Order: sequence, then structure tokens, then C-alpha cells
Amino acid sequence: MDIATRVYNHKWKIDPIVRSLIDTDFYKLLMCQSVFRNKSDTQVTFSLINRSTHIPLAHLIDEGELREQLDHIRSLSLSRGESTWLRGNTFYGKRQMFRPDFMEWFENLRLPHYHLERRGDQYELTFEGSWPEVMLWEIPALAVLMELRGRAVLNDMGRFELQVLYARAMTKVWEKIEKLREIDGLSIADFGTRRRHSFLWQDWCVQAMMEGIGGKFTGTSNCLIAMRREVEAIGTNAHELPMVYSALARNDADLAQAPYDVLRDWHDEHEGNLRIILPDTYGTRGFLDNAPDWLAGWTGIRIDSGEPAKGAEIAINWWRDRGEDPRDKRVIFSDGLDVAQIAELHARFSGQVNVSFGWGTLLTNDFRGLVPQEALAPFSLVCKAVSANGHPTVKLSDNPEKAMGPPEEVRRYKRVFGVGAQDAIKVVV
Amino acid sequence: MDIATRVYNHKWKIDPIVRSLIDTDFYKLLMCQSVFRNKSDTQVTFSLINRSTHIPLAHLIDEGELREQLDHIRSLSLSRGESTWLRGNTFYGKRQMFRPDFMEWFENLRLPHYHLERRGDQYELTFEGSWPEVMLWEIPALAVLMELRGRAVLNDMGRFELQVLYARAMTKVWEKIEKLREIDGLSIADFGTRRRHSFLWQDWCVQAMMEGIGGKFTGTSNCLIAMRREVEAIGTNAHELPMVYSALARNDADLAQAPYDVLRDWHDEHEGNLRIILPDTYGTRGFLDNAPDWLAGWTGIRIDSGEPAKGAEIAINWWRDRGEDPRDKRVIFSDGLDVAQIAELHARFSGQVNVSFGWGTLLTNDFRGLVPQEALAPFSLVCKAVSANGHPTVKLSDNPEKAMGPPEEVRRYKRVFGVGAQDAIKVVV
Repeated sequence: MDIATRVYNHKWKIDPIVRSLIDTDFYKLLMCQSVFRNKSDTQVTFSLINRSTHIPLAHLIDEGELREQLDHIRSLSLSRGESTWLRGNTFYGKRQMFRPDFMEWFENLRLPHYHLERRGDQYELTFEGSWPEVMLWEIPALAVLMELRGRAVLNDMGRFELQVLYARAMTKVWEKIEKLREIDGLSIADFGTRRRHSFLWQDWCVQAMMEGIGGKFTGTSNCLIAMRREVEAIGTNAHELPMVYSALARNDADLAQAPYDVLRDWHDEHEGNLRIILPDTYGTRGFLDNAPDWLAGWTGIRIDSGEPAKGAEIAINWWRDRGEDPRDKRVIFSDGLDVAQIAELHARFSGQVNVSFGWGTLLTNDFRGLVPQEALAPFSLVCKAVSANGHPTVKLSDNPEKAMGPPEEVRRYKRVFGVGAQDAIKVVV
Repeated sequence: MDIATRVYNHKWKIDPIVRSLIDTDFYKLLMCQSVFRNKSDTQVTFSLINRSTHIPLAHLIDEGELREQLDHIRSLSLSRGESTWLRGNTFYGKRQMFRPDFMEWFENLRLPHYHLERRGDQYELTFEGSWPEVMLWEIPALAVLMELRGRAVLNDMGRFELQVLYARAMTKVWEKIEKLREIDGLSIADFGTRRRHSFLWQDWCVQAMMEGIGGKFTGTSNCLIAMRREVEAIGTNAHELPMVYSALARNDADLAQAPYDVLRDWHDEHEGNLRIILPDTYGTRGFLDNAPDWLAGWTGIRIDSGEPAKGAEIAINWWRDRGEDPRDKRVIFSDGLDVAQIAELHARFSGQVNVSFGWGTLLTNDFRGLVPQEALAPFSLVCKAVSANGHPTVKLSDNPEKAMGPPEEVRRYKRVFGVGAQDAIKVVV
């Protein structure tokens, strides 16, 4: 390293974890544009939820360091090159995916305030404000917490011990890649930004995938990495849209329609491979049974909770019932995947339907088994919209372990959406 | 990397494997000083011998590249800092180990010509000239051949495939180090210069040993790495001394005395931990049985061929027979060791005698199992004195697989030194 670089690095007061507003998931930006257009005056609260309560985040992470990292994120704004890329790049085959009015707003955006408080051995971290601004906190907040927890463990390790830790982690990723290479017709993307080990590690994993499986790697959800590594930015929409739309519903009839309203707005904006249904927010089966026919014309369905093979069967049967040929459709699996499950699902469903995979935490943060007491193993941390215009949000999903919201509201949603008994599946990441 | 560094690197016509005359084993310099003082006008021939004839070196390594590397070594001379270190450093607790007349000669040294010819799928590589000059070719010549063979394999690999290869190799070394860490009272040095994977890799291994086992790591045989990493330079003497002294003997009576003459010269120069007997050149048992009593006063014995536990038993019993307490003595194991054998020998002999280990090729070049067809596995390549003043040299050792010399001379040496039947042990490295 040359002297100037070293001196320049000394000037950083901290080593920032998130250094760009586009170090975030692509679907966040797509959803943000949709929200900016359709619901920009909605006031929301997002909140950190550590589902892995055995991980005492407030013991592991220094509050001062956490504040420094979050403050640094608040100082970020879109750079000229980032803006040029968002305006000029082709996404999903489309030019000018991001409209000029949205881009102008985004170029002037700074992320809003955060509220941080220690509660026992956990942090309460919340973000309040207008939906399009607050929603952009989700991914960087999660990435900061995951990486600070990792740094706390790494701080106590020697230089060569660290090298060997990364050597082992690299070997682990590469062995997975070697298995993926064997799967004919595989189509897989990196979805691992939010719970990654670190930015540099995610960037390494993406490059290893590019070299290791070539065309089978379809891209990354991370916009900054997609830009730098010149791969596709991947992603469509997430649970926050139906959750907030539903919280805004004024009665049960409106509530029952809210998830379809979301997709109607989306339908107006997007086509082709961006028309992907995420059906599980309030139970996949009821959602599809009650869906309007135009939704059956959409390109695909993303399976993000419950037993994935069961979800895919439901989707395939639904298409058949609606007179669609599943072979023209796409199923995207994205829930806590690892290689064995990817291979199994691919073998089972390819041929019946187009299959792709959004591979997340177990690509970008599989440090299980590498240090004592699993101190670097990933865990289930989320940051969710918990209220909209003062009304609490609810998520049911196809796995009761992932449900959230006040109990009385959960009961109401179950009634409105006709959700009965569900199988619980342990949430790892 | 800064631009200037990058441009500077472009100026190299080749990427030199050996960049310093002290990128060699410490015992070579000790022996060189001894030879410079006692036998400087001896004319010798050193020759490369590939004991692993299934490795077709001349197919794997481009002759032009090999010549470039050897020519580069001929351009090297001792740098001011290297000379200062050799003159000023403490070796084995002694200041001014290298005398001014030797240092002056060494500062002016350039290595002599080499003779390279392709013979089928092997190279014939020989060095002729005065002993103190020619002997310094051994280590760099071996290191160049080993590394060029490795580079030929690595050339075809992708960037991340390479990263993962080294990740796996690092993990392999570290797992060995973790096992060594468990051995109480261990004393182990790096002896892996000659058949290392590469210079950078040896340097990494030494640093990993420093961090990983701390005080149990006693140093490295490599002078350049010892200087840069500020650890002890380790080594005493080798087979070439008795081999050349014996070749110079004018009759059988002189021949029988030659190995003791070597140690008498050494006795005049060195004391303490540098008085280590290497007894196996013409059979350990006979050498010790016929040894003069003053040799029993030496500090230790190095076991470099044959079944190591058997060699150590012979040494211990010999000391007892000569009225010495083995607990005041040292046995150094240095023949093709790996961790399991180190642990076993340590457990068996510590307490009876001081035990240390010179760990070579399986520290600095254990790339077994990391690429297909074992294309990077280490193999048995040596560079030996084959004649002195026109007389062929002979080595018997305690393993007939390691014997060398013309058959009729081997027979004569066996008769003179009373060597009977020997157990053959497969030579891996």
C-alpha cells in the first residue's frame, strides 16, 4: 500500500459498513418508486426485530459504534455515478426503469432520523417518517447490525487466525459453488445483502459465483455490487407493500382486497419478469384461491415461507386451474436456501415450471462451524414496517414462526384471509 | 496498488523466483564457510536428481523460463542489508558467526555457470566449479524447479479458483498448526526451503507458525525469511560434507576416517547446539560404533533417513554406552515429517532426550489433494554433489531408496563402512 492511501485511510474516523445509498436491494428501489408514486404521504414506522433472542445484540455491539455507523448512513447521498447508472442502465431489459421525478427525489434524499434505545440485552431501533424515505433504512440497518456483531468477534482474533477463518469460509462457499455447477439449467441470484457477513465478503461471493458458475448466475439483489461487477440487478417486490396497504384498509372488505390492490398498482408499472407474485403475506392458498384472473397472467410466483415444495405445488396447480401452462411460468424460491435444498427443488420442479433461486444468507454469511460457540453463525434479524398512519401492520406468511403483529389483529387477519392451521417450520436465517 | 508500483513491476522481464542469495538454507552458509576455510580449492560437480521419475519435468517446465530463472540467480549478489545482517546478527547465541574473510568473499560472489540439457522428459542440470561456489546452487536450483512446475499448473486456473486453492492450502496448514499447538514442550523449525511451493507461500507458513504456536516455533532454515521475520536461522550441516570428504579419500583407510574428519573440522569451528551429528551418510549404526569418544560429547544427532524411531533408539543407546546422559542430548528429526509422525515421535522420546523437529516439505508444500491428478503434490527432487576432484561421490543413508553413486563404489563404501542389509522405506518428499 502506498503512503498516500494509508494516510487517506487514517482520516476515516470509522470504517463505514455502508458507504452508498445503493448498497441496498434492487427491489427496495423498485418498491420505493412505486410507493413514491402511489403512497408517498403514508407515515410508517419500521422496527428492528431480532427473532433470534438468544443473540444478545446489545451486549455484543457497542452502542457508540452502532450510532456512528447509523449516523454515517444518514450522511450518504446518491453519487453522480450511481445516479447515472440508475438512470442509464437497463434493468430487466428495460431502459429508464426509474422515472425522472423519482430520480430527482432520490438524488436529494438523505435518510431520516433513527431512534435507538437499549432494552435489556437487545436494541430497540426504529425509524419513523414518510414511507418512501423510511423504507430505505431496512437493508443498511440490518447490514450494519450483522457486520458489527461479526466485527466484535473478529476483533479478538490474530492476523493469521483471521486469514485462515476467511480461507475456510472461502473454501465453504467454493464447495457449494462446485455443487451448483453440476446442476444443468440452474438459474440463481444472490439475495444475501441484508444478513451478509460484510460488504467485502458479499462482493467476494458474487465474484466467486460469476467465475464459478458463469451463466447460471443471473445477478445480485445488491445494486452497488451489480453496478461495480456489471451483472444484473435482481428483485421485484416484498411483503412490506401488502403489509402497509393492508394496515391502511378502513374495513374488512378493503383489507381482503388490499393485497390485490398492491399488485394492481404494480401491474400498471411493470411487465414481464417483474410481474412476480409474492402470495404468502396472508397465506398462499387463500391468496391464490381468491385472486382475480388477470393475476394468473403474471409471469411467476416467489415462494418465501412455508414448505417450499408445497408452495410450488400450490402455484403450479393454481396456474393449471386458471388455464395457464406452468411451463410458461416461473417459480422463484427465496426462503433460507442452501445448496442441498436448491438441488432438490431444481430436480423436482424443472421441466414442470421455470425454476429460479434467490440465494441469501447461506451464500453471503455461512460462517457456521468456523469459530467456537457459533459466534459468527447467521441469525434471524429483520427490519419491518410495524405501523402505517398509526395502524399496526400484520404479517402471517405460510409459517406461523414468521408471523408478526398484535395478537388481536393477527386473529382478525386470519379470519379475513381465511387462514387455518399452519405447519411451523424453524427459522434459521 | 499505486500506479508507480504497478509500472515498476512491469519493468521486470520475469517474475523472479529467487531474489536473494540468502534465500537459502542457513546450514548452506555455515558449511560454505567451513569449506571456504578447509577445502576451498576442491572442484565439485552438483547435479539435479529427480527421484520421482513419473514427474516429467521437461514436459511441465519450459526450458526458456527455466533458463531465465537460473540466469536471474546468476545476476544476484549479496545486498548491503543482507551482508549487515550476516555480519551483525546473533546465530545460535554467537556473534560474528561469519568471519570477515568469508564475508568479504561472499560479498563479491556471483554464482557460477550452469549446464542445462533436456534428456527425454527430464532435465539434466549440473553445476561445476569450486566447491564453496557451486554448493550455493543447490537450494535455489531446487526452489526454481519446484516453483516453475507449480506455476505451470496454476497458469490454467481462474482468479477465484486460485483464491480458493490457497484458501484450502492455508486451512490445511492451519489445521496442522492447531494440532501442533496441543503438543506440550514441542520444539519445531521450518526446514522447507528447497521443495517449497513458492517463496511467498513459505513466508506465509513461517508467519502462520509464529502466530499459531508461538514459542514452540524455533525458527526457519531460510536466511532471508529469518532476517525479514526476525526469527532464528536454524541448521547445522548436511551430507555433502562427508560425501565430498569421502570422495577425496585416497584409500579405504582414509575413506573410513573421512566422515570423522568432517566433524573434527566442525568441532574446531563450532560448539553447543551447532555440534549436531548427522550420522546416516554411510549407515548410522556403523558410524556411531566406530566414532571417537569426543563425538559422544556433542550436543545432538539428526535423524534424516531410515525408520526415525529406530534411529533415535540407536542414538540414545549409543550415548548411554559412551557414559553420556541422553537427557542432556538432543535428537532432531528431519526426514519427510508430517504432523502425526511429529506427535508420535515427540510422545515417544520426550523425557528420554531433548527432541526437536525440522519440518520440511509437508509444511511448505503440502498441496496434496487440492487439484486433480495431484498436479501440485510435492515430489522427491534433490541436487547433490556427484563428484569431487574427478572422483564420484557416494551416499548410502539408512534407506537404500536414498542411496546414490556408481554401483561399484556403493559396494566398496558398504564394505568399508560395514553396512549390511537395510530396510527400504518409500521416499515421498
